[in-house]
Amino acid sequence: MAERELALLAPVAGLLALAVALAMARSVARTEAGEGRMVDVARAIQEGAMAFLAREYQVLVVFVGGMAGVLFLAGRGAPGSGFGPAVAAAYLLGATASLAAGYGGMRVATTANVRTARMAERHGLAGALAVAFRGGAVMGLAVVGLGLLGLGLLYLLWVDPGRPATLAVLNGFAMGASSVALFARVGGGIYTKAADMGADLVGKLEAGIPEDDPRNPAVIADNVGDNVGDVAGMGADLFESYVGSLVAAVVVAAAGGAASSGGGAAVVFPLVLAALGVVASLLGIAVTQAGSGDDPARALRRGTLTAAFALAGGGGLAAGWLGLPQAAVAMVAGLAAGVLVGLVTEYYTAGDRPPARQVARSAATGPATNVLAGLAVGMKSTALPVLVVGAATLVAHHVAGLYGIAVAAVGMLATTGITVAVDAYGPIADNAGGIAEMAGLPAEVRAVTDRLDAVGNTTAAMGKGFAIGSAALTALGLFSAYAATTGLGAIDLLEPRVMIGALVGGMLPMLFSSLAVEAVGRAAFAMIEEVRRQFRERPGILTGDDRPDYARCVDISTRAALAQMVAPGLLAVAAPLVVGWLLGPAAVGGLLAGALVTGVLVAIFMANAGGAWDNAKKYIEGGALGGKGSASHRAAVVGDTVGDPFKDTAGPSLNILIKLMSVVALVFAPLFQRAAG
Amino acid sequence: MAERELALLAPVAGLLALAVALAMARSVARTEAGEGRMVDVARAIQEGAMAFLAREYQVLVVFVGGMAGVLFLAGRGAPGSGFGPAVAAAYLLGATASLAAGYGGMRVATTANVRTARMAERHGLAGALAVAFRGGAVMGLAVVGLGLLGLGLLYLLWVDPGRPATLAVLNGFAMGASSVALFARVGGGIYTKAADMGADLVGKLEAGIPEDDPRNPAVIADNVGDNVGDVAGMGADLFESYVGSLVAAVVVAAAGGAASSGGGAAVVFPLVLAALGVVASLLGIAVTQAGSGDDPARALRRGTLTAAFALAGGGGLAAGWLGLPQAAVAMVAGLAAGVLVGLVTEYYTAGDRPPARQVARSAATGPATNVLAGLAVGMKSTALPVLVVGAATLVAHHVAGLYGIAVAAVGMLATTGITVAVDAYGPIADNAGGIAEMAGLPAEVRAVTDRLDAVGNTTAAMGKGFAIGSAALTALGLFSAYAATTGLGAIDLLEPRVMIGALVGGMLPMLFSSLAVEAVGRAAFAMIEEVRRQFRERPGILTGDDRPDYARCVDISTRAALAQMVAPGLLAVAAPLVVGWLLGPAAVGGLLAGALVTGVLVAIFMANAGGAWDNAKKYIEGGALGGKGSASHRAAVVGDTVGDPFKDTAGPSLNILIKLMSVVALVFAPLFQRAAG
Repeated sequence: MAERELALLAPVAGLLALAVALAMARSVARTEAGEGRMVDVARAIQEGAMAFLAREYQVLVVFVGGMAGVLFLAGRGAPGSGFGPAVAAAYLLGATASLAAGYGGMRVATTANVRTARMAERHGLAGALAVAFRGGAVMGLAVVGLGLLGLGLLYLLWVDPGRPATLAVLNGFAMGASSVALFARVGGGIYTKAADMGADLVGKLEAGIPEDDPRNPAVIADNVGDNVGDVAGMGADLFESYVGSLVAAVVVAAAGGAASSGGGAAVVFPLVLAALGVVASLLGIAVTQAGSGDDPARALRRGTLTAAFALAGGGGLAAGWLGLPQAAVAMVAGLAAGVLVGLVTEYYTAGDRPPARQVARSAATGPATNVLAGLAVGMKSTALPVLVVGAATLVAHHVAGLYGIAVAAVGMLATTGITVAVDAYGPIADNAGGIAEMAGLPAEVRAVTDRLDAVGNTTAAMGKGFAIGSAALTALGLFSAYAATTGLGAIDLLEPRVMIGALVGGMLPMLFSSLAVEAVGRAAFAMIEEVRRQFRERPGILTGDDRPDYARCVDISTRAALAQMVAPGLLAVAAPLVVGWLLGPAAVGGLLAGALVTGVLVAIFMANAGGAWDNAKKYIEGGALGGKGSASHRAAVVGDTVGDPFKDTAGPSLNILIKLMSVVALVFAPLFQRAAG
Repeated sequence: MAERELALLAPVAGLLALAVALAMARSVARTEAGEGRMVDVARAIQEGAMAFLAREYQVLVVFVGGMAGVLFLAGRGAPGSGFGPAVAAAYLLGATASLAAGYGGMRVATTANVRTARMAERHGLAGALAVAFRGGAVMGLAVVGLGLLGLGLLYLLWVDPGRPATLAVLNGFAMGASSVALFARVGGGIYTKAADMGADLVGKLEAGIPEDDPRNPAVIADNVGDNVGDVAGMGADLFESYVGSLVAAVVVAAAGGAASSGGGAAVVFPLVLAALGVVASLLGIAVTQAGSGDDPARALRRGTLTAAFALAGGGGLAAGWLGLPQAAVAMVAGLAAGVLVGLVTEYYTAGDRPPARQVARSAATGPATNVLAGLAVGMKSTALPVLVVGAATLVAHHVAGLYGIAVAAVGMLATTGITVAVDAYGPIADNAGGIAEMAGLPAEVRAVTDRLDAVGNTTAAMGKGFAIGSAALTALGLFSAYAATTGLGAIDLLEPRVMIGALVGGMLPMLFSSLAVEAVGRAAFAMIEEVRRQFRERPGILTGDDRPDYARCVDISTRAALAQMVAPGLLAVAAPLVVGWLLGPAAVGGLLAGALVTGVLVAIFMANAGGAWDNAKKYIEGGALGGKGSASHRAAVVGDTVGDPFKDTAGPSLNILIKLMSVVALVFAPLFQRAAG
């Protein structure tokens, strides 16, 4: 079979994933939704989530339209640079594909939540797990399906590996995916934490009503936030990694980084690997569903491992057949790194492991020591993931050069279909619990959803680790692609421009995180004011005689999130352009490296500190160290509140920052060369 | 005059500084010390401080002896590498010089404190400022005097710029200074915060007695900590920067980095500049003392600016006369960067500026929002210092290449004499207040020392910014020297070993900070247990009928600090050796760059977050936002407690980490080459 025809596997696998996603979405929709208050609550959540998306998309249309215009015009100013209508169109296509995946995934997730609650009520654990997981799988398959379909078609219709300028369309597609990810992750992250803090600080602490109580005006916004942040935001993040890693591998291979590794076969191998990854993910999803009568944690783990082994086997055979045995080694290195980073994350955040226990014990001497212990765990937890990613990179480079690094990233991300499915199942189960509570379903229902939710918390922590690890490898791949595109022979730290680029790049994740944390603070403040106002002006709400105005809280969180994300977003897009314009392409290389190093470290630090605080608090709430209401518990709540914007807003947003900066640099690389040359 | 003779200026200026230091120490000793309880308290503090030094020195003797043995033996294994008896001896000399400066400076500081209190009692503000500042000036002049004398003699007696291997003695001297700085900064930082937290948490919060109350068993340890951390630790830190920047400039010049800049004159210019810096510092000290009748803040500022302008003028003339006008520009770039970084630090931490005000306001919604606001300020405050250091580096490199960067560092540090004097005056004034309180002196005395102390807090914050900025430039200079010594033509981020080195290097400051924060926690816990035990077993202490066992608290803090600093210390020394052995010299280059980027950022983040929390709390204590005892105040105390180990232990220790790693790499560079070659 010719190499060109092999690339056909990509859109075919993409279509397969989409077909299965559609079938699963239908199967979820056909499941019984319950009645009465349950359906009302679920409708309010779905309307809120869709309202957020609609508003976000309005802002996005302006941003994406503007960027497409810039790409179009840049082509007129720099003929032959690869810019122009094709890149602008590919950019729009990438953005649209990500938006479509997010829209479809959210729609199904907000359909599956109430059905999960109903299944928990009628059929117990196994049935509830099946629906929740199916809802998550739609998001996962939509991500890989649209990503692979879009990239595959662009590759077949436009790219000629012999003419490097034609590769620019792939960069454009990746940049479209990155732009949407920025809005979905940062905006979604701000939304979810503002709603959460508003619901908790006023509802739980000031008014003294329990979690998910329907008297809390912010309760719907809080449940919307789970979908907006953990389903749509996470999906867009991994869509960006998935697309970015594939583009990087193809670009590096075509630009000759793989000259020693088999030429044309090397260019097409990443697409083949991704296609095999779709099949592996489908297999994993089937295994999970077949095992859903068991312990949910075991079923999810078995599905994930099945997919990983299937990919390793299939990918290895394909690599051998294409005459690229080295690429198989690089792929396995990436795959193994993904699994190991997940396990390390689990160790540092799980409630039954020493780090979170130590954070819990430190709450005995007050909030300050609890905060310090969590910060220390977060900082310490950066060591092993960095060593794991470093080792995988070394192995991959040893066998296949820069191409090997890019292939390792693809290996890590090829099974994104099931990874996202496992991740998105968590917030669906969480929502199901909220709906059960708000609709006044029996306590047994809540017990079932709580069990699913507890498993979801662990998978979410591991998913965060995976998202960071994959962002790191993707950014490394994009960094190689940037170097290949600019033709920079070296990015030399002894050149002060490069070192200064690295210092400035290293600083950006700190500045970006600071903006994100402050944004959450401001948005939460708006929410707190609104909830207080409703309680004050309508005293009937707390007595249960009056219905709170949920929609207004949803609206406030939406507005605040979108307003607050402008500054960090501009920073990410502008920084590589300004540095490239002032100091040239080598300095941008330093900038990307600096941002990669600090971004990965701060993201791990924030995610794991947040996870450790969260689970330390839950450990105390489970009755340890004085239990709920004790001084230790009050101290642990402080740590958990500090950790919320860390782990759900600033940390995950850094994944986007490092990838988006790399993609922007890659797309605009031809212009930096002109400026410097 | 021949260039060789010009180098004579260095030891001569060193002797001049030491002579003035001796005269000032005598003048402090001749001042009236007061009587009765005052003298008792002062003696207890001095004994505690000297006991800590004695114990620290015992540990150091083992460490320094072992390292000297390694250097000696490495020379036998690698003949011609520059290692051997001379480097081992220079290493011992550097360590001894730093120890002597620390010993002398602490001795005088703990003599000046009680005399400052007495002057405040008898002669008011001007007299008290004069004694406190004179005490600090002895530390400052001892640092530059011993540094310059030692380096100058080594240069004249051993170095032949034509034979690069002879430069290894200078590296050895710098590594000796770094080893002592590690112990002084990390050990001192752990000591001071353990004592502080022990005194505050049990004394103030549990027993409800005020600050500096003689009934608190940890009160002497707390006052000892000010000397151990802020006088000896800070002095050793700047001794290391001072020596490191000079060595880097000489090595880069001799290794040909300055071939275009005048050859021999370029080698000797850094030493001439340092000698002029001594004269400039003496001038600044004289101006400060003459103006001490005025506002203390103005007197200190006038002295610092006088020294800066004197150095700029004198250094410019000398550079012109030596035919190195470009070096004058580089020097001024460094000098200006030091001043600007100090001003930025002041902005982000001062109690009357928006950032600290915002942190204070965020305390209204509880400790969690206060902690988040401080973290956000700290992260945001990294932006401007990085841009300032980056701009200075660009300018310096533009005019004189890598040599220019090293000269910029020397320019920033040449006036270290007065910088340390201004820094060390703060803890002396702070101690004077403690003695006044414990000895029951009239309230007016405390009012005078409080005014001096408030100025000291501002100068301390600016001094921290300066210490970080100078560590960054020194590390950049040492990085250049490392490259020159290894003969690496490039440290290329496209080589995965370099990128992995950068990732691992970037991770080390996080891991190191985590160890430091946990060390403070453990040491503070030991102290808390001891204070509780004393209160429990001897109830007469709290009623004033029994005298607490101060010495035991001093002893516990000492033991804990020294035991806890082993792990971070080993990490700093071992990391470059392990990476060099496994991955070769280019990977070590990446390691140093990564550690430099993250280390500088995390150090600024921690110092400024800590400063902002501290001053936000003080702002509330001054009566704002509900004042002392309000809910906002309780929340602000949490932030301040989180900030304590940030700003006084982990943050400053990172200065040492990045310099020590660079020096270790520089010293062992010949061995990495052999391992790789």
